[in-house]
Amino acid sequence: MRSVDLNCDCGEGFGVYAMGDDSSMLGIVTSASIACGFHAGDPEIMARTFKMARAKGVAAGAHPGFPDLWGFGRRKLAFSPDEIERLVAYQIGAAMALAAYAGHRLTYVKIHGALSNLAMEDAAIAQAAARAVRAVDPRLCFLAVAGTRLVAAGQAQGLKVASEIYADRGYTEEGLLMDRSCPGAILSDAAEIADRVLAMVEESAIVTASGKRLPVEIDSICVHGDNPNAVAMARSLRSRLEGAGVALAPFAPC
Amino acid sequence: MRSVDLNCDCGEGFGVYAMGDDSSMLGIVTSASIACGFHAGDPEIMARTFKMARAKGVAAGAHPGFPDLWGFGRRKLAFSPDEIERLVAYQIGAAMALAAYAGHRLTYVKIHGALSNLAMEDAAIAQAAARAVRAVDPRLCFLAVAGTRLVAAGQAQGLKVASEIYADRGYTEEGLLMDRSCPGAILSDAAEIADRVLAMVEESAIVTASGKRLPVEIDSICVHGDNPNAVAMARSLRSRLEGAGVALAPFAPC
Amino acid sequence: MRSVDLNCDCGEGFGVYAMGDDSSMLGIVTSASIACGFHAGDPEIMARTFKMARAKGVAAGAHPGFPDLWGFGRRKLAFSPDEIERLVAYQIGAAMALAAYAGHRLTYVKIHGALSNLAMEDAAIAQAAARAVRAVDPRLCFLAVAGTRLVAAGQAQGLKVASEIYADRGYTEEGLLMDRSCPGAILSDAAEIADRVLAMVEESAIVTASGKRLPVEIDSICVHGDNPNAVAMARSLRSRLEGAGVALAPFAPC
Amino acid sequence: MRSVDLNCDCGEGFGVYAMGDDSSMLGIVTSASIACGFHAGDPEIMARTFKMARAKGVAAGAHPGFPDLWGFGRRKLAFSPDEIERLVAYQIGAAMALAAYAGHRLTYVKIHGALSNLAMEDAAIAQAAARAVRAVDPRLCFLAVAGTRLVAAGQAQGLKVASEIYADRGYTEEGLLMDRSCPGAILSDAAEIADRVLAMVEESAIVTASGKRLPVEIDSICVHGDNPNAVAMARSLRSRLEGAGVALAPFAPC
Repeated sequence: MRSVDLNCDCGEGFGVYAMGDDSSMLGIVTSASIACGFHAGDPEIMARTFKMARAKGVAAGAHPGFPDLWGFGRRKLAFSPDEIERLVAYQIGAAMALAAYAGHRLTYVKIHGALSNLAMEDAAIAQAAARAVRAVDPRLCFLAVAGTRLVAAGQAQGLKVASEIYADRGYTEEGLLMDRSCPGAILSDAAEIADRVLAMVEESAIVTASGKRLPVEIDSICVHGDNPNAVAMARSLRSRLEGAGVALAPFAPC
Repeated sequence: MRSVDLNCDCGEGFGVYAMGDDSSMLGIVTSASIACGFHAGDPEIMARTFKMARAKGVAAGAHPGFPDLWGFGRRKLAFSPDEIERLVAYQIGAAMALAAYAGHRLTYVKIHGALSNLAMEDAAIAQAAARAVRAVDPRLCFLAVAGTRLVAAGQAQGLKVASEIYADRGYTEEGLLMDRSCPGAILSDAAEIADRVLAMVEESAIVTASGKRLPVEIDSICVHGDNPNAVAMARSLRSRLEGAGVALAPFAPC
Repeated sequence: MRSVDLNCDCGEGFGVYAMGDDSSMLGIVTSASIACGFHAGDPEIMARTFKMARAKGVAAGAHPGFPDLWGFGRRKLAFSPDEIERLVAYQIGAAMALAAYAGHRLTYVKIHGALSNLAMEDAAIAQAAARAVRAVDPRLCFLAVAGTRLVAAGQAQGLKVASEIYADRGYTEEGLLMDRSCPGAILSDAAEIADRVLAMVEESAIVTASGKRLPVEIDSICVHGDNPNAVAMARSLRSRLEGAGVALAPFAPC
Repeated sequence: MRSVDLNCDCGEGFGVYAMGDDSSMLGIVTSASIACGFHAGDPEIMARTFKMARAKGVAAGAHPGFPDLWGFGRRKLAFSPDEIERLVAYQIGAAMALAAYAGHRLTYVKIHGALSNLAMEDAAIAQAAARAVRAVDPRLCFLAVAGTRLVAAGQAQGLKVASEIYADRGYTEEGLLMDRSCPGAILSDAAEIADRVLAMVEESAIVTASGKRLPVEIDSICVHGDNPNAVAMARSLRSRLEGAGVALAPFAPC
């Protein structure tokens, strides 16, 4: 029986500020990528989110980003690869500690936002991120966007790599995420999203905008939690997959 | 043969800002309490300081403080014990990760500044700090000011506790650090400091301002690194101890 | 004809994080107290909020708080009165600049959260806040909680002071805001709130929990914007006042 | 009689961290560009520095930079021109307030570090910085690197522009600052620096590495305060200029 993971960014509030409906999402996904206090999150939110993930049997990952709360980690910052290695290591350690505090265990790392985008463009940055994971704990999995330099970097560092596709994003003919400004870059129809994801999972291939298939390993599907329809969309996607006989299970169980 | 540890706060710069002469101090002390990025320090400085400590065979501890770079962690902030538990855990984790990155290993935790002062006044805060250590890794030692609630809290949580005295601070008749504004609170004569510390170590007792002896376990002596004479004073203290047959060794070796 | 101001805290989001429904509230209130980037707000949000206030003819004030985004300015921090004077001045200046940028003009200052609470307890802090206003621009009004040290401090510094009551908070027999943990501290029934506020405005008196009247000048009514019913409650309050012949107008028009 | 200004960055410490010897430099220069709390500086340091500048009769400018204390404003951050306009406006306002608090008056603005470098590369960013100045107070002068887009932007916005050269930096044949990594980019010989600056001032021209003259208006000379020889170098430069009959006076007196 085919099995796949469903992952979502979580714990991305800060102080009194909320972001997304973590409680609902953690009832649907199988892995939670938890912000580490640099682009979002704080020790309170981290502890709470790791506890919720544990209570719901959801695998927990660190979701490190640029130190840019103002820009939510989406702004490109000119850090060198060496600096990135250190700031990613710092965040993974903080997440491991809060996971331990919450009685959970961190099993993977997924890079956030602009740092992830830069790593897809620049192999030196992808390698820096992967080296940080290995340096802190080589048993951690590396969740990377399917078919990108992040996957290659994780493999080069000897990490167990999981490849993810995005449920609600269109793909170019080269298998890259379409720029958010392009028509078709953001999908919003829940049925269409579920059909397309199911096709990708069953065929182990990215489905491009034109319908072309690009074979790729798919270990996880990323759903977003920060829009109003996120919960409904994730729930519908999960139902569709289960209805088609695809089991949902974390790629890196605790 | 009597043996004692010499510890110093390290890695307390930030970005381009320097604080103290870590390179010299790490040639003298046996344990380095390394700032974790909240009251001082950043991932770059942490990596550099852990590497230096490792190269010089100095034991490495985490030195967590309040999230208050502006106040260098010396300003009292109204965090609840639960919040303190989480923010201390966060910093310990970050320090463990940077230690691992640097090829070193974290073996202890020492609380910084106003957070330490509050913990000495308020048992709930002392317990919160000790609980954070236990939650993240119960094998970590807890370096605490001799004779205070911090020692009791560490013991109550089942941690291995090391007690420290301050080389350059006067003690009240109750065995507490004299307020910095009192005459005699800050000692600056290197010979007097060395004599007094030697007496305390040999007699296992705090020597108060009046000369009274208060028996206490002494595992470590704290020297400060952030004043111009710090290095000379630490060197003179180390010589005096070694000359009197006291060995210097970390209480929590790597 | 009796006239009173209706004020609301605005611009209290940060980056991608939202707080309250400023757009709706600015259609109801006559004065907007705009966060200055320390406890909330950022230059983007400030510019946007000053522009909205100007477009809707709402008077604009600076709403300085502690430098504590994590605690939303609600955590007590041990700053000295002199330090408070400077950090309040800083924020007023920033707000004046963004108001100018937005084509609006800053006409008043209202202190936020824990800093305001501390100023009500400690005359030295209240004076520091008022001195900051006078130092930056003595023409600015000082919006202060009716009957407190803040009012006295503003008057002592020669500022034009406006006194405000809280629409949704219960008052002790001494005329102080009841502690949030006490029953009756937070009012939620819109009709009851409107009746009580109208009584206070018409009688120029605080109505305490027992119904006692404490005469006080009332220039403004503070409504909160950060709860789900805020907009409905503010709208109902405004209607009730206007229905009773009370005109709504800023105490410090641009 | 020829007259020129001597300017220096000041107030670039943070909290307990020191940077440069402002007290000495303010006895030598005629204009102080004071950090505004984003790349360096805080309300305490700002108040102190404006007071010192006033006491020594030194003109005061705002020195806004990127919100990047960790990188001291030297790291390129991907802010849009519109965002830059707002974050520069914010800092100018804060500086005006602290200047007023200190009994001084802000008379100019000079952009710092990576933001200045980006403005020299990208006219849209230079215009954004100049628009921010005009929006906050069109009477403020704009101190800009001679011969660059910053000068053009200030003029296009109708600001009074002052052009500065760097005392200790080599110039390319195109009149640009040589990259710090090139030989000859950083000058350190005090006599050579003084001779070269005097030649530039007397001939109203940039002297390039090869000795070529590029005519340019020179209103100010920038000396750095953040290296050990800064004070001696600035003093020697001032003597040399005065000895040659060049008067030293602020381009934007209070």
